[in-house]
Amino acid sequence: MTEPNIGAEDLEIARLDFSIDRVGEPTLPSPLRDVPFVDDGGRVCYFHDTGRILALREAGLPIPGFVQAGPREKIYFDPKWTRAAIVTCGGLCPGLNDVIKGVVNTLWYTYGIDKIFGIRYGYRGLEPRYGLEPVVLDPDVVDTIHEDGGTILGSSRGNQDVESMVNTLDRLGIHVLFAIGGDGTQRGAGEIARKVKERGLRLVVVGIPKTIDNDLNFTERTFGFETAVGASSPVIGCAHQEAKGAWNGVGLVKLMGRDSGFIAASATLVNSVVNFCLVPEVPFPLEGERGFLPALARRLERKHHAVVVVAEGAGQDLLTAGTRGKDASGNLLHEDIGVFLRDEIGRYLKARGVEHSTKYFDPSYLIRSVPAQGTDPIFCLHLAQNAVHAALAGFSNLVVGYWHGEFTYIPIPLAIRSRRKIRPEEQLWQSVLTATRQENWLADL
Amino acid sequence: MTEPNIGAEDLEIARLDFSIDRVGEPTLPSPLRDVPFVDDGGRVCYFHDTGRILALREAGLPIPGFVQAGPREKIYFDPKWTRAAIVTCGGLCPGLNDVIKGVVNTLWYTYGIDKIFGIRYGYRGLEPRYGLEPVVLDPDVVDTIHEDGGTILGSSRGNQDVESMVNTLDRLGIHVLFAIGGDGTQRGAGEIARKVKERGLRLVVVGIPKTIDNDLNFTERTFGFETAVGASSPVIGCAHQEAKGAWNGVGLVKLMGRDSGFIAASATLVNSVVNFCLVPEVPFPLEGERGFLPALARRLERKHHAVVVVAEGAGQDLLTAGTRGKDASGNLLHEDIGVFLRDEIGRYLKARGVEHSTKYFDPSYLIRSVPAQGTDPIFCLHLAQNAVHAALAGFSNLVVGYWHGEFTYIPIPLAIRSRRKIRPEEQLWQSVLTATRQENWLADL
Amino acid sequence: MTEPNIGAEDLEIARLDFSIDRVGEPTLPSPLRDVPFVDDGGRVCYFHDTGRILALREAGLPIPGFVQAGPREKIYFDPKWTRAAIVTCGGLCPGLNDVIKGVVNTLWYTYGIDKIFGIRYGYRGLEPRYGLEPVVLDPDVVDTIHEDGGTILGSSRGNQDVESMVNTLDRLGIHVLFAIGGDGTQRGAGEIARKVKERGLRLVVVGIPKTIDNDLNFTERTFGFETAVGASSPVIGCAHQEAKGAWNGVGLVKLMGRDSGFIAASATLVNSVVNFCLVPEVPFPLEGERGFLPALARRLERKHHAVVVVAEGAGQDLLTAGTRGKDASGNLLHEDIGVFLRDEIGRYLKARGVEHSTKYFDPSYLIRSVPAQGTDPIFCLHLAQNAVHAALAGFSNLVVGYWHGEFTYIPIPLAIRSRRKIRPEEQLWQSVLTATRQENWLADL
Amino acid sequence: MTEPNIGAEDLEIARLDFSIDRVGEPTLPSPLRDVPFVDDGGRVCYFHDTGRILALREAGLPIPGFVQAGPREKIYFDPKWTRAAIVTCGGLCPGLNDVIKGVVNTLWYTYGIDKIFGIRYGYRGLEPRYGLEPVVLDPDVVDTIHEDGGTILGSSRGNQDVESMVNTLDRLGIHVLFAIGGDGTQRGAGEIARKVKERGLRLVVVGIPKTIDNDLNFTERTFGFETAVGASSPVIGCAHQEAKGAWNGVGLVKLMGRDSGFIAASATLVNSVVNFCLVPEVPFPLEGERGFLPALARRLERKHHAVVVVAEGAGQDLLTAGTRGKDASGNLLHEDIGVFLRDEIGRYLKARGVEHSTKYFDPSYLIRSVPAQGTDPIFCLHLAQNAVHAALAGFSNLVVGYWHGEFTYIPIPLAIRSRRKIRPEEQLWQSVLTATRQENWLADL
Repeated sequence: MTEPNIGAEDLEIARLDFSIDRVGEPTLPSPLRDVPFVDDGGRVCYFHDTGRILALREAGLPIPGFVQAGPREKIYFDPKWTRAAIVTCGGLCPGLNDVIKGVVNTLWYTYGIDKIFGIRYGYRGLEPRYGLEPVVLDPDVVDTIHEDGGTILGSSRGNQDVESMVNTLDRLGIHVLFAIGGDGTQRGAGEIARKVKERGLRLVVVGIPKTIDNDLNFTERTFGFETAVGASSPVIGCAHQEAKGAWNGVGLVKLMGRDSGFIAASATLVNSVVNFCLVPEVPFPLEGERGFLPALARRLERKHHAVVVVAEGAGQDLLTAGTRGKDASGNLLHEDIGVFLRDEIGRYLKARGVEHSTKYFDPSYLIRSVPAQGTDPIFCLHLAQNAVHAALAGFSNLVVGYWHGEFTYIPIPLAIRSRRKIRPEEQLWQSVLTATRQENWLADL
Repeated sequence: MTEPNIGAEDLEIARLDFSIDRVGEPTLPSPLRDVPFVDDGGRVCYFHDTGRILALREAGLPIPGFVQAGPREKIYFDPKWTRAAIVTCGGLCPGLNDVIKGVVNTLWYTYGIDKIFGIRYGYRGLEPRYGLEPVVLDPDVVDTIHEDGGTILGSSRGNQDVESMVNTLDRLGIHVLFAIGGDGTQRGAGEIARKVKERGLRLVVVGIPKTIDNDLNFTERTFGFETAVGASSPVIGCAHQEAKGAWNGVGLVKLMGRDSGFIAASATLVNSVVNFCLVPEVPFPLEGERGFLPALARRLERKHHAVVVVAEGAGQDLLTAGTRGKDASGNLLHEDIGVFLRDEIGRYLKARGVEHSTKYFDPSYLIRSVPAQGTDPIFCLHLAQNAVHAALAGFSNLVVGYWHGEFTYIPIPLAIRSRRKIRPEEQLWQSVLTATRQENWLADL
Repeated sequence: MTEPNIGAEDLEIARLDFSIDRVGEPTLPSPLRDVPFVDDGGRVCYFHDTGRILALREAGLPIPGFVQAGPREKIYFDPKWTRAAIVTCGGLCPGLNDVIKGVVNTLWYTYGIDKIFGIRYGYRGLEPRYGLEPVVLDPDVVDTIHEDGGTILGSSRGNQDVESMVNTLDRLGIHVLFAIGGDGTQRGAGEIARKVKERGLRLVVVGIPKTIDNDLNFTERTFGFETAVGASSPVIGCAHQEAKGAWNGVGLVKLMGRDSGFIAASATLVNSVVNFCLVPEVPFPLEGERGFLPALARRLERKHHAVVVVAEGAGQDLLTAGTRGKDASGNLLHEDIGVFLRDEIGRYLKARGVEHSTKYFDPSYLIRSVPAQGTDPIFCLHLAQNAVHAALAGFSNLVVGYWHGEFTYIPIPLAIRSRRKIRPEEQLWQSVLTATRQENWLADL
Repeated sequence: MTEPNIGAEDLEIARLDFSIDRVGEPTLPSPLRDVPFVDDGGRVCYFHDTGRILALREAGLPIPGFVQAGPREKIYFDPKWTRAAIVTCGGLCPGLNDVIKGVVNTLWYTYGIDKIFGIRYGYRGLEPRYGLEPVVLDPDVVDTIHEDGGTILGSSRGNQDVESMVNTLDRLGIHVLFAIGGDGTQRGAGEIARKVKERGLRLVVVGIPKTIDNDLNFTERTFGFETAVGASSPVIGCAHQEAKGAWNGVGLVKLMGRDSGFIAASATLVNSVVNFCLVPEVPFPLEGERGFLPALARRLERKHHAVVVVAEGAGQDLLTAGTRGKDASGNLLHEDIGVFLRDEIGRYLKARGVEHSTKYFDPSYLIRSVPAQGTDPIFCLHLAQNAVHAALAGFSNLVVGYWHGEFTYIPIPLAIRSRRKIRPEEQLWQSVLTATRQENWLADL
């Protein structure tokens, strides 16, 4: 008999430090007294810094806990003088504009801050040599931006020189920087926070984690993920029709998921016409008795069509195995698992004289650029509100998280120390195995 | 300073009984050994009956806990001989077919049960005088039903005679009944379970709660809610266009929510063009200094259009106040808050000589009959799986719940003792106040 | 043997006058020479006033023809001095913003006109006592308005005093008025045109017909119709699910179509789950051997569910027959065929002891307020371009039409003399009969 | 002054032969007498073989005309004994299942034919060596297939041996073959018709043209085109967001259109955020003063983002120019204009030191596999009905066309002699030039 959910990983969690940096002791009364944050007794509601969200699901261990997100009774920055900036970094993700709108409206209406700037094109906009002036943001500017995908601020990949970025922030007189972005962005945000602390500047950095793959550690949900799963479903439906429409038709869909297969696995369960779901967490052999290609061939022989979903980070061991050699520059010929599988399927079936037709779908840009759907806009708003609450209270070097139904504040170093991954022994992956009836490759390896 | 989240309600929770009925002691080894439910060490994963999910968010109190949902190591029913039935009751809800499909596939593939029956048209199908034969269900029958809204089994409102229903179940030789439905349905399921126990029949009843309003107690999410919120958003968008298209145009949208305003509040946050959101939890005066109608008139004077969202259960005190008298039969002339508000708006503005045009939207049937979207299909599947796990383990008189990110088993009497409601002091409603900038009526009352 | 398509109606058409008013002889060379309207020989393309579009489908008759739409070699107004205005009237229709955008861009880019005004809230905006100033329009203002339903200008129903409207136009110095609206709007446009002619003003009025019902005479397609048909299809799907979900469930959908049933008939063919389609052109008896209610009861007995689509103008004879009496004010108790049918179905079935459940859908506001879809935006653009070409050439008192695949100019008196209706003997209605298998009531009556 | 629309092409049309083959003289009275195809006088409506649809838009030329589609008073085949078959060939296209359903229902309900077979996987299903048995079709089988994209029959590319296919049809006793497919399919259908005639078999072949590109000659509309244009619009919207989201972002979308750019041009007008639209009919230089790449660079310098739509058949001269050489096998390195442009844009901008980011979209499979939308399902039904009418009347070797608002019968040799193309001097392309403000390359060349 196994004892699920308590193991080395949980013991390690028990030893982590969940406390949050703060730029200084808050002394100002919160202006929330003046806006309608009241309980049914008419009293204003605040959250305590000592409130903790359990980071472990089981009692019996020393219990570490996240700092609870929410408005504090005392704040650090004086709204009348506070200047805030927002930056969006990395690839597009549904909900970016919702988060921007939420931050602007919460700063403006809840705290009465009216100096809000949008940094253009990611961290690039903090690097003076690009000459990109910030734009001014207010509730009118952001009124309907949630109806569009993308980000009104523009974005870019990669960090810029920290010293240079801090100089720009200082020159612009920014007290509060909201950094919306992924792993790398938050690493950059953490470096800015540390540099700022070194210099003794009165500036906090609050991250809002953006990973469409939903693979941030210590966070059960990230914005855009629900929308991405929903938007993947019709693509799989199209792949199914293309597969059924041809003799031995194969519909092959590559979905997002560089390190974690949450989108691929979830999309497989949402539109359960998928016969094979391949994710980074579960390596699979290409050939051999329990290999993917022979299993696909057996499926075609039986049903004459098949649908395959593959996360972009799946099967990386096959690619580095270099089965197809390198090009003149020494690059591996195949770096894209989707294209690689399409070619391998063709090669394998052709060698066995199986007439077939593979249709390859690479819809990532079509999924990540749509507006937030379902309940994602609400999630974005709540992230934004809690980010603003953290910043005003003087917290820094943190991202807003979500754990067991509650919003939390996570120290940036904790949030980026590793990625959240599918646990194959849990319900999500077990359901994928049942839905697809595919091989349980993990049992082998 | 307030201390949120610990109060009389939580203390009451601490005294509740969360234990689950069981028809007998399970003695059979689970067939899950033969299907791929394994952890990464190759061992099969089971859940412990002693596992508990915290029902309170704060430590410091004696901690009650829900029974954790999931497969058990020992099961009670022998799959080779088990006969299962599924019934859907009450109004349509997105995801009904997903749940049916999930139950059938889990029974069939995970436990090897191949005697599965669908009861037609709700509990009516268990009442012999209607002559409704059950339909046979298997994975082929349910293969693509998740693509459609509605329920393939049909539904009906209301309970039938318990004695008579138990007789039918006994005659059909059913061991396991899955009852998918709301409050009333689960009350009926509880009665069946008690009657069965009285008679000493070898039959368990497992409920899967269906409330599009998301108002089941001790459950943070119910299936169909996310889809309903998503489907409400374009309706609000249409109301906005109609409002802006006319001089003093008012777009009035009635959304579902008999006792709780979760859909109305969430839809307001998703499509934040709403100026007034009215829910059952927050009574509002119609006229007077802080009344809804004067506030609406002021909005029109300023912007010449307005969007109003009202939950069907909002303002019931206004209706029973009987401002418009009763008809010959003694019925109140207005029972529908949407129609009532439409008429009151017209009356009020006309009396003040304000030319205007109110467009009334009543989209409930259009929202509840669509297929499950976003991540709802996954949630339906997981509910179905955990319902089957409970039934096979011999549990009865329970519904499957969801609490702090985990699936739970809730005794039916607990689940139906009261409805979950919006807590106006928490983030959801506070965000609505900020988004709409409407009066905080609660502060008055 | 019948001779379809040549009859009294066609002979009447042969006697009509299709010539178009003109405010004066055009003498200016068209600036189109400077923009890229060229054929593949590099020559600029113009259309001849003598070009005619056949108004009859058969030869052998003296052939009248519509004036062909398109740019003319010579224009009447000097773009440098021309001031144009746009007004949208009546109910919303998908594509209004596309037409506005198309008119603005064609005036601006194709003819170089930069004085363009938007009249607010329909003809009301031309009546000084409302104090509504026109808004200035240019390509930036209209850049993304096609993404939204509704009309950015606002709209209103009804005409205003002609004298007063002409005074306003004169005061604003408008040379070209584009009137986007239905029957009544074009009647008003015609009156403005005549009054202007009387007074000898240098002002042309060009109508762009807006009827979501697609019932304009001498025009085979109006903008928004395709979108409306497409948007009706999911509503019918929801009605189908609601019908199947209940014992003897009836899904009753009222669609737009005051005088003509094109939307109801087309939507029935697009989503062919409809069992009864009721339109104004085909009267039907409510009871009796071939009546609608007995036929519905037979359908329920056989299948236990039914879907009914009714155009809002269908069965008006039943309403005026006053089967349910009048209220105190002498108004007929039922004026809405949808509500009437819902009640009659209930009454009829209840009287026969048939348990049933009718779900009523009234989605008109949800359909007419969506953005234009499919190829409607292109159609809107081409209407707008041809309206501008007509105005610049000095034509007045006309609407832009579409006939046998070509755009035409129709004198307003011709366009509004009667409405286009379904010809029951032609393919559209015959297909409805085949798709629904309903009674051919016409054969009786 | 130019004289548009009368030229060498029209004179050539005047000399074409529009008459239709017939397998024999029809002698049977049509059973339509028994179904409800009646005019308002109660008489059955038929169409005359001598009815003609004008193939030219201008009078003054000898007028050739298409044979008018529709039911005939006398039919050739006796429905009681008639055996029909349907085959779908080539790539997927929205509406395939609608056409299949329409043919089956018209055969069954309108003519009373109950021997209907579906050929599996295109012409491959008529080649015995594949061992593919036909499936039996009836109204129940096709009841809900219109809700899905794809084709329930499967499809394949390419023709099979004509002799062998005719043998199969003869062996199956088929009298009527409906061939749904493109150019090549209709060429095959024509060969079958000729072979059948040679052998004196009592078998007619009626084609229903399938070209998502809308490029069939003598037909103004083909099924699926409207849906494809509608489905392209959100893709262009995503490309716009991706372009705006990055510094010098380029959204490059390849759309369908091997020989004709109707989809690319129409989609550009529907979602008018496109800056460059490239189609096969209008060659463009890559570099040089008026080249595409310098124009793109200028656009980026001005706005820092751009959207480019390219039809798959555009710029073929650039590919064959072999700017990038050939591979070992002698194949040109770039055969895909989308990939070619993506690489050329990168090369050109990089060489000039312009930081940029190009996102490439290739959505063809996602567009062609969706269900028919808007009014496409009605068009599919009417095509199907007219195909059945033609077949029953004994016509053969034809496809159903659509000309000036009427359905027609076109001899297969006429239909496939050349493709319909955009006429750049007409409204569609001129509107694209205005909407994009791109170079009028044609004026140069």
